[in-house]
Amino acid sequence: MNTYSERQKKVSSLLAGEDISLLVLCDREGMRNPSIRYLTGHPSDSVLFIFADGRSLLLPWDINLARIKATATQIKPYNDYGRTLGQALSKVLAEEKLPAGSRVEVPDALPYPEFMNIANGPYQFVCRENGLASAIDDMRQIKDDAELVTLRKAFSITDDILDKIEAELRAGQCTETDIALLIDREARLAGAEGTGFETLAAAMGRSYNIHAFPAYTGAIMPADGLSIIDFGVKYDGYTSDVTTTITRNLSPEQEHMVALIEGAVDVAEKLLKPGTLTTDLSGAVNGYLESGGFVMPHNLGHGIGLYIHEKPFLRAKVDPVRLQKGMVFTIEPGIYDPKLGGIRLENDYMITDIGYEKLTNSRIIRL
Amino acid sequence: MNTYSERQKKVSSLLAGEDISLLVLCDREGMRNPSIRYLTGHPSDSVLFIFADGRSLLLPWDINLARIKATATQIKPYNDYGRTLGQALSKVLAEEKLPAGSRVEVPDALPYPEFMNIANGPYQFVCRENGLASAIDDMRQIKDDAELVTLRKAFSITDDILDKIEAELRAGQCTETDIALLIDREARLAGAEGTGFETLAAAMGRSYNIHAFPAYTGAIMPADGLSIIDFGVKYDGYTSDVTTTITRNLSPEQEHMVALIEGAVDVAEKLLKPGTLTTDLSGAVNGYLESGGFVMPHNLGHGIGLYIHEKPFLRAKVDPVRLQKGMVFTIEPGIYDPKLGGIRLENDYMITDIGYEKLTNSRIIRL
Repeated sequence: MNTYSERQKKVSSLLAGEDISLLVLCDREGMRNPSIRYLTGHPSDSVLFIFADGRSLLLPWDINLARIKATATQIKPYNDYGRTLGQALSKVLAEEKLPAGSRVEVPDALPYPEFMNIANGPYQFVCRENGLASAIDDMRQIKDDAELVTLRKAFSITDDILDKIEAELRAGQCTETDIALLIDREARLAGAEGTGFETLAAAMGRSYNIHAFPAYTGAIMPADGLSIIDFGVKYDGYTSDVTTTITRNLSPEQEHMVALIEGAVDVAEKLLKPGTLTTDLSGAVNGYLESGGFVMPHNLGHGIGLYIHEKPFLRAKVDPVRLQKGMVFTIEPGIYDPKLGGIRLENDYMITDIGYEKLTNSRIIRL
Repeated sequence: MNTYSERQKKVSSLLAGEDISLLVLCDREGMRNPSIRYLTGHPSDSVLFIFADGRSLLLPWDINLARIKATATQIKPYNDYGRTLGQALSKVLAEEKLPAGSRVEVPDALPYPEFMNIANGPYQFVCRENGLASAIDDMRQIKDDAELVTLRKAFSITDDILDKIEAELRAGQCTETDIALLIDREARLAGAEGTGFETLAAAMGRSYNIHAFPAYTGAIMPADGLSIIDFGVKYDGYTSDVTTTITRNLSPEQEHMVALIEGAVDVAEKLLKPGTLTTDLSGAVNGYLESGGFVMPHNLGHGIGLYIHEKPFLRAKVDPVRLQKGMVFTIEPGIYDPKLGGIRLENDYMITDIGYEKLTNSRIIRL
């Protein structure tokens, strides 16, 4: 039994435990759920049906790709099931002849009008926050050995690229676009699927934006002041996520910002161990930054894996979760000022038995 | 009054006509709706409230960016409104003191559980397919003069890049990644925001996939047989979408596929005029390809604009729509065979008073 079959069996037992006969998951434009890749290995748009009796049915948009990549009891073209979630579900229910009253759990991301269209017939349709899809998200936030092997490849490529970026910037002048395309090229040449998300490369003058727009331009790097590069490498579906800030000829105020961010990382790392509440962790960093005169306009970090933003979410006021061994997430304190520029330092961490392992080697690059 | 204010006024009058007091639109990870950019110019995550009395309130995630880019009666940080759609809506409703019983339309993409949480209080919450959000999508499918000026810039950059790709491939050997990064670099140097979606570059051996996975690799191009390059250029939010197939040393079966695709384009172009039903158009092309021995596994085309897949959708069996002047969409017949490879030829078209204008110059590149 391969990893995917094992994961599917675990989910089937969750269904049985909640008296759900059928769970439907969907990963497509407008309704993303990377849990299908987690459960089957299929990397592209599809609908997955998991039955309480242990069987699974995958309906991929691209049947050729699924035949190479996917593990499921049955794999059939989505085309044969009407190409809409509603039609596919109707057909599966008709084929399966589930007893009237059976409980069928549909995606929690299902739009209200679509749910109202689908939820008819002699079944009991369940669509809830913190349901089985969320339970699978919880499984996914603790990385297993197979996932860690893959993630470590992504991290290793990421660190190599960070070194190449530093060398490129020390060698002389280039552009935001040069850096972004260096990242993309090196990632793919190293066997990655690509970048984990659109690279952000923002020289001073644009770095005060939390999310630079456009993501990268022809602007010259390095520039005096604070310049930000935020990228990830996606290897076999799993993505890293790091940010480095490049500094040159800083003013005293900018030096203060750098010291503050490096101090914020120290504050966070001291709390990285099993049992820490994510809200306490985030709150401690926020408090430290505020005592230094800055409010962080985004969250402290987020889980990474098959999706760039997944559980656990490191937020100061909501979603308290206790850190557990095997959780892999970013720590990314950042502060931004329209005049002084922006600075963010982001690395990826894993919680261990007694503390943490720092998985990437991003740093402030001082030119 | 600028373009954005005018568009907002049009939407306000739609509200008044349906006795809706407040329309909520949302564009964020997991709930995309580019109509916010269409209505305000704001290019990034945000929630937009439009009132029947003509006012608008934009809650952007990035307030700095919104202050530069956005048009709305009021612009306030999403942070001040709790950073969730539910909290933001509660606060706005409390501030506005709408009369009890007022009709409030929320995004049709709102997940069922979230709708059930939000839809309380003395208001009547409306969440429906083909509601006001859909009416705005309908407005967007007919491009106005300002949009056409922008789109033509995207098309012009696209055509220049097609010529550069052809020159590169004729000059000698490169890789899928070289081509993809050439596209990205040239787009940005020409002032585009970037590519409209992840470029697909699939040499023979991978070209039979409808959607190559990974999107591009270190594989050598050109290769003997059929190789596909699919890309778009995003200028000021508006994207082009073209596909070229590169041919070299074809077998007779592959030559037949090329002739069939070029014939399919002719079949389509003959029907491109106001009044044609999208289902008739798509059905005619499907029939032609089937008579040549191939089933097209995807739709004939889709509208383009602020989103890569928007109305009108050119589908053979569902969503019949009559073509109208000002609609801009792709025509992209494609056929795929695991042994022979894949071929797709995609260009962008606009419906005119009497027929069509072909907006891009993609072609089969025969080496």
